[in-house]
Amino acid sequence: MSRFIKKKKEDIGLSPYALVFRGQKKTDKTVLRAMDFDLEDVTEQELKSTDDLIGRKKSKKLTWLNIDGLDNAELMENLARVFKIEQNILSDVMNPAARPKVQEFDNGIFITIKMLHFDEKNDSLSADNLSLIITDNTLISFQEQSGLVFEPIRERIRKHKNKIRTSGADYLAFALLDVVVDNYIYINGILGDKIEALENDMTGNLKKELLESINSYKSEMNFMRKHIKPAKEMILNLGKMESEFIHDENRIHFRELQDNINEASELSDSYREILYDQLNVYHSSMSTKLNEIMSILTIFSVIFIPLTFIVGVYGTNFENLPEVHWRHGYLFMWVIMILTTLVMLWFFRRKKWF
Amino acid sequence: MSRFIKKKKEDIGLSPYALVFRGQKKTDKTVLRAMDFDLEDVTEQELKSTDDLIGRKKSKKLTWLNIDGLDNAELMENLARVFKIEQNILSDVMNPAARPKVQEFDNGIFITIKMLHFDEKNDSLSADNLSLIITDNTLISFQEQSGLVFEPIRERIRKHKNKIRTSGADYLAFALLDVVVDNYIYINGILGDKIEALENDMTGNLKKELLESINSYKSEMNFMRKHIKPAKEMILNLGKMESEFIHDENRIHFRELQDNINEASELSDSYREILYDQLNVYHSSMSTKLNEIMSILTIFSVIFIPLTFIVGVYGTNFENLPEVHWRHGYLFMWVIMILTTLVMLWFFRRKKWF
Amino acid sequence: MSRFIKKKKEDIGLSPYALVFRGQKKTDKTVLRAMDFDLEDVTEQELKSTDDLIGRKKSKKLTWLNIDGLDNAELMENLARVFKIEQNILSDVMNPAARPKVQEFDNGIFITIKMLHFDEKNDSLSADNLSLIITDNTLISFQEQSGLVFEPIRERIRKHKNKIRTSGADYLAFALLDVVVDNYIYINGILGDKIEALENDMTGNLKKELLESINSYKSEMNFMRKHIKPAKEMILNLGKMESEFIHDENRIHFRELQDNINEASELSDSYREILYDQLNVYHSSMSTKLNEIMSILTIFSVIFIPLTFIVGVYGTNFENLPEVHWRHGYLFMWVIMILTTLVMLWFFRRKKWF
Amino acid sequence: MSRFIKKKKEDIGLSPYALVFRGQKKTDKTVLRAMDFDLEDVTEQELKSTDDLIGRKKSKKLTWLNIDGLDNAELMENLARVFKIEQNILSDVMNPAARPKVQEFDNGIFITIKMLHFDEKNDSLSADNLSLIITDNTLISFQEQSGLVFEPIRERIRKHKNKIRTSGADYLAFALLDVVVDNYIYINGILGDKIEALENDMTGNLKKELLESINSYKSEMNFMRKHIKPAKEMILNLGKMESEFIHDENRIHFRELQDNINEASELSDSYREILYDQLNVYHSSMSTKLNEIMSILTIFSVIFIPLTFIVGVYGTNFENLPEVHWRHGYLFMWVIMILTTLVMLWFFRRKKWF
Amino acid sequence: MSRFIKKKKEDIGLSPYALVFRGQKKTDKTVLRAMDFDLEDVTEQELKSTDDLIGRKKSKKLTWLNIDGLDNAELMENLARVFKIEQNILSDVMNPAARPKVQEFDNGIFITIKMLHFDEKNDSLSADNLSLIITDNTLISFQEQSGLVFEPIRERIRKHKNKIRTSGADYLAFALLDVVVDNYIYINGILGDKIEALENDMTGNLKKELLESINSYKSEMNFMRKHIKPAKEMILNLGKMESEFIHDENRIHFRELQDNINEASELSDSYREILYDQLNVYHSSMSTKLNEIMSILTIFSVIFIPLTFIVGVYGTNFENLPEVHWRHGYLFMWVIMILTTLVMLWFFRRKKWF
Repeated sequence: MSRFIKKKKEDIGLSPYALVFRGQKKTDKTVLRAMDFDLEDVTEQELKSTDDLIGRKKSKKLTWLNIDGLDNAELMENLARVFKIEQNILSDVMNPAARPKVQEFDNGIFITIKMLHFDEKNDSLSADNLSLIITDNTLISFQEQSGLVFEPIRERIRKHKNKIRTSGADYLAFALLDVVVDNYIYINGILGDKIEALENDMTGNLKKELLESINSYKSEMNFMRKHIKPAKEMILNLGKMESEFIHDENRIHFRELQDNINEASELSDSYREILYDQLNVYHSSMSTKLNEIMSILTIFSVIFIPLTFIVGVYGTNFENLPEVHWRHGYLFMWVIMILTTLVMLWFFRRKKWF
Repeated sequence: MSRFIKKKKEDIGLSPYALVFRGQKKTDKTVLRAMDFDLEDVTEQELKSTDDLIGRKKSKKLTWLNIDGLDNAELMENLARVFKIEQNILSDVMNPAARPKVQEFDNGIFITIKMLHFDEKNDSLSADNLSLIITDNTLISFQEQSGLVFEPIRERIRKHKNKIRTSGADYLAFALLDVVVDNYIYINGILGDKIEALENDMTGNLKKELLESINSYKSEMNFMRKHIKPAKEMILNLGKMESEFIHDENRIHFRELQDNINEASELSDSYREILYDQLNVYHSSMSTKLNEIMSILTIFSVIFIPLTFIVGVYGTNFENLPEVHWRHGYLFMWVIMILTTLVMLWFFRRKKWF
Repeated sequence: MSRFIKKKKEDIGLSPYALVFRGQKKTDKTVLRAMDFDLEDVTEQELKSTDDLIGRKKSKKLTWLNIDGLDNAELMENLARVFKIEQNILSDVMNPAARPKVQEFDNGIFITIKMLHFDEKNDSLSADNLSLIITDNTLISFQEQSGLVFEPIRERIRKHKNKIRTSGADYLAFALLDVVVDNYIYINGILGDKIEALENDMTGNLKKELLESINSYKSEMNFMRKHIKPAKEMILNLGKMESEFIHDENRIHFRELQDNINEASELSDSYREILYDQLNVYHSSMSTKLNEIMSILTIFSVIFIPLTFIVGVYGTNFENLPEVHWRHGYLFMWVIMILTTLVMLWFFRRKKWF
Repeated sequence: MSRFIKKKKEDIGLSPYALVFRGQKKTDKTVLRAMDFDLEDVTEQELKSTDDLIGRKKSKKLTWLNIDGLDNAELMENLARVFKIEQNILSDVMNPAARPKVQEFDNGIFITIKMLHFDEKNDSLSADNLSLIITDNTLISFQEQSGLVFEPIRERIRKHKNKIRTSGADYLAFALLDVVVDNYIYINGILGDKIEALENDMTGNLKKELLESINSYKSEMNFMRKHIKPAKEMILNLGKMESEFIHDENRIHFRELQDNINEASELSDSYREILYDQLNVYHSSMSTKLNEIMSILTIFSVIFIPLTFIVGVYGTNFENLPEVHWRHGYLFMWVIMILTTLVMLWFFRRKKWF
Repeated sequence: MSRFIKKKKEDIGLSPYALVFRGQKKTDKTVLRAMDFDLEDVTEQELKSTDDLIGRKKSKKLTWLNIDGLDNAELMENLARVFKIEQNILSDVMNPAARPKVQEFDNGIFITIKMLHFDEKNDSLSADNLSLIITDNTLISFQEQSGLVFEPIRERIRKHKNKIRTSGADYLAFALLDVVVDNYIYINGILGDKIEALENDMTGNLKKELLESINSYKSEMNFMRKHIKPAKEMILNLGKMESEFIHDENRIHFRELQDNINEASELSDSYREILYDQLNVYHSSMSTKLNEIMSILTIFSVIFIPLTFIVGVYGTNFENLPEVHWRHGYLFMWVIMILTTLVMLWFFRRKKWF
């Protein structure tokens, strides 16, 4: 199945304000989890229905609202109403094919990026969409399906009474994006280990599976690079953004994010180069091996050509063929043939042909 | 027939103000359709003659004037007069080979872009020109031939009492351009499906048609990329344009358009890469297959070479050839030959030559 | 002969003010033609001697002075004096190897560009230098040799009482440059037709001449691209130039020129790509054809190898060779050989080797 | 073992303020060396414990604090307290995988770059991280392990009473960076010598080791380029930085650094090109050699083919084969065979086939 | 010997103010020549010792001080003192490996560029460093060795009472740089002639020396391009420089220099492309030739295969082989063989295999 998300015919001409889910359903049920915290206190709860949204947000605590599943249009409408988010933003949230981007709106900042997941069993990558909305003292994160990716962040919030509890929704967004980008680097590393391990199979007899592995890793690398490139662009824009929703003291972290995404991008460049080199080595090894075989076989054949000619000569039926009647004629023929062979071997050896 | 539009010799040196049709006629008759609407009301009518243009536009309603067919110079002159459009703009409208561009003039904005159409029967793309003129409360769209591309937009106007009825000619222009760009992505997807389907023919015996398919999709992809590139440039310029004819609240949609065209561009990059990979895989598979055949045949030949030599030896007519006179001489020869064969097979096997 | 103009040893270290002709003479005699016109009136005359220059330009009419032949240093000096043009500008005019550029000076604008000419007989391109000097109400154009390239412009001036007669020297310069650039597109089209026609020779038996054609068109395409690139740069600079000699209302035409040169550039990109694709198809077709021949011949040879071995066996002179003495021994041999052949054919067929 | 530093799974989601060592330990013990100097005086001492840090820096002397080993979190915390360095800076110091970058903070400038080391025995490069912190009148340098790289700078400080003693921490930082970049150029030179020496093995019989050498140098070159590229970017940013910690009179040196890193980058480009050229020459030489062998062997075989056929003819058992009964039949056969051979040799010679 | 200048180990960590010669000595003795001139008068003298420097420059004349040989540290120190040039500038002058650059300092402008020299005997390029220092009314030029490159400029100063005598040190610097860049174009032309001459050897039998020539010119072209690229950058910076030492009326000449260096750069691009094309044509010609030979030889062999089989059949010793006993059996065999041959030839011909 294709990993590229295609435009559906019926989506052409759709209003940019229509709250219609444009992806593939990856989860059965939409799950809402709220985490409210300040320096002192952390409370976590799972919201049962979208009604729980109303009446929330009286406290001054920072709220992290995480939503797994993007196909609940009713929930989106409620969110729009409660947090005063423009509908065209939420319409983008519901489109997992959207390109990574950052966009400011009246009441906040909207960020979307792809999270990569590496399936070690099949050696294959998949991408999930992550959308973040930074508003006053709430961060809303939207994932296509539930997962444990952000568990370390939750742990940091639960355990440490420090910056992450007090630096606002933008710092929390940075922390989530940092996990996503660190994951890029981590997956680069895993793929990289596998790619470098191929080197060991590169000597001796090359197996056909090696070529398949190289090609498959190349395609995974390309898939990853396809997602890193627009994410890099997005993070660059985020770093330059002048917005009241990004605190000046957190600005430095977004620059750090830039360094990280650059590192991810360069790593993937390096591994891609290594893959191309391996491909070249594979092909040139294959052709060298074939050439060696051919050389040896050709020389083998060539040595027999004059021998076969000689026995042909003594197989003719001429009445006056003198050697045939000699006493040691047969021996004589063998002497000639052995001499011929030795001369040829010496000649080929001297020419370094084998 | 070439899909590139060529400059005609007689068009060289033509004044940029001359209203001369410079393309190939694709429609018999020029069709004018007007759609007037505000939040409350929608009326549609087909204008019979260019005289109907005069006297229009007294109401405050937004008007969408769609013209199919570009070769009616008289109509263009009337349009120029009625809507105060400069002649050099309309001269560009009549040139379907014009490059996608956006241009401001005294009374509006002129936009031109290519619409792509994919003919599933022949697996081939064609391009039609679309020109848009945004003026005060009228949008004029020019197409080379009639089609149903914009029907979804008409439906949205007819059915929904929302933004599209009230946000002005620039929003309507955005909606049309969005359809065009969505169509790029959609066609990318169709072509992409076909390209990815080629993978299945990539294993086992490769057929010659596969190579033809790859090459043909490559040429279609290049054709598409050729049109997407300047369109991307144009939309970028549109997004940066400071004009009274683009409302500030619609500006965001033009940025969305940029994201879409970028996605189209990246998709086409991805598929192009896949095609190149397929080409490489095809060629290396072909040569691997050939090499395998050659290896086996060569080894087969090589095994017979010493055997043929041996029977040659015993075909010589030496009087004193001892083995010939042995009782089991013939059997002896066969034993020698079978041993030779086995030794060679063992040697080749050990060397992993087959 | 090389189409690249080389620096002569003696020109190294020459003052940028020296009025020395640095090209190859392409015309016998320098021809001066003056065209004076306003909305009402057009007069044309050929100037006999450089003295005619003096005393000209009393009227307010727009003058187009066209000079064919660049080697007349005396004329250049007179021009410098009469029109107050700096000597280093005219020194550039006399250097046909100069790179396309635009340069402002105290009394005007200096523009130089290459005109391309396609010789259909030899399928080869050549380049001529065109220099333009825009001064107050005079346009001076310098060509390396006489030609009919600008005849359509002259016709427009003679026949139409419109913008071209009244919009100043800059508009006239635009019209001339537009002819040059339109010519680029036109030649691209001619070459393009020839290139696309090659496709028909691409099937069946490939001829060696096809490769030569592809290589020759590639070299012509490169020659053209070499001239289009700096011209594009020059026109971009012209479009951005803030000068009193370019009227604001004509500025739009220089932007149109940019679109045209971009189109020329993209067309040549497209055709170059097509040529590269053709080259690839040619080479892969050639190698496919060769491989097919080799496969068939190899299989043919391989089938005879065991047969030749078999007849060799029965050609041995063993006294106790039983089959030789059988009644149907000869027939028996043929049966064995035919069976061997059939088995091999069946095997190769099953393996899809032919 | 891979030379790319991988992200550890447990580091994902780590706070940017956590002082955790994220690399591989390369040294047993953290060593602190302080060098205090002004124009008159130089004192050097090795700090025994991190307590020695407290109470330092009362004098107005410039201090260079060098720390070998990055895994001492306690030391880092003390440094943060004493020199008022933000924790996220020191967290970066402890991450040797960090990308070269420059970053300003409240009390200074933080710079990180990679030092390259060439191991002549294994012909392989390795990279060590160098971090510099420029504060008021102290330069702190962090290295992954002890080494003699900066000994020349120490000597310059000890021996010469000049600019290096008086121009502040930024000039000292420049001097250290200059050593690092000079080292890039130096290593480029060493590798370059080895690469150019390969040319000598390029003639005559090519050895397989040659290919291995080329590929190995190519991979080292790529490793170096991977580190030079972001360093170039970093130095560019440093040169443009407006900071109170960089004295205007030292600004020129940072521009010099840019020239040096550019030279390093261009050198590595040149050597990479040479390597690619060598690879091409190697492959084309190999295939030329193989083709020559094949040509000669083929011609040798082809000459024997008709000869073997002729002896086959006279080996047939026809009763009425006339030549067999001739007196000089055998001689006649040899004459025919020798003539055939001569004609073929003459023909091949004329065709320049060998 | 390598043409790349390598960093010496002992130069790492050197102060940027140290006046140490960092290149290879190319001249025995440092030669100082002074040329003083104004519109009226020109005097030339060779300075005997560095003491002559002191006491110079009382007149208002423009002085051109040319120094051949860079290894005289004492002279450099005197120059620094007399003309108030900063030591780090002169330190750069003494480093012939320095990258082309332009740098402003308190009392002038420092420019460094490479002069190329083409040795026609060995068809090889070499590079010499040229440094220029523009101060108030003196131009100091530093060359690695004596030569006649600037003789045309000296002649212009001696003979013509014009701009070159009166336009200041910056105009003189422009004139020298112009000679250097004109020389680039000139050498491009010489190399280009040789490259284009290779085309004639491209038809018929290709010689091995042709490949060597192509590769050697390619390496020379790369060497030249390596020096042109940073020179282009430098001249661009020079053209944009705001400095009191560059007169506004001379600014136009530096823009002219840009055009020239661009032309040099584009010429070298063109010739590089031609070389790559030649390489491709060479390789494809070689392989076409080889394929042709192989085809013919293979067909020749294939024709003999069934013939050899047939004579084998009649060489068998079957008692009941009927044809052997026929009267015209031998003739019959020949008829069969000739028919077989003709059928095969006809078949191969029809298939266009030879």
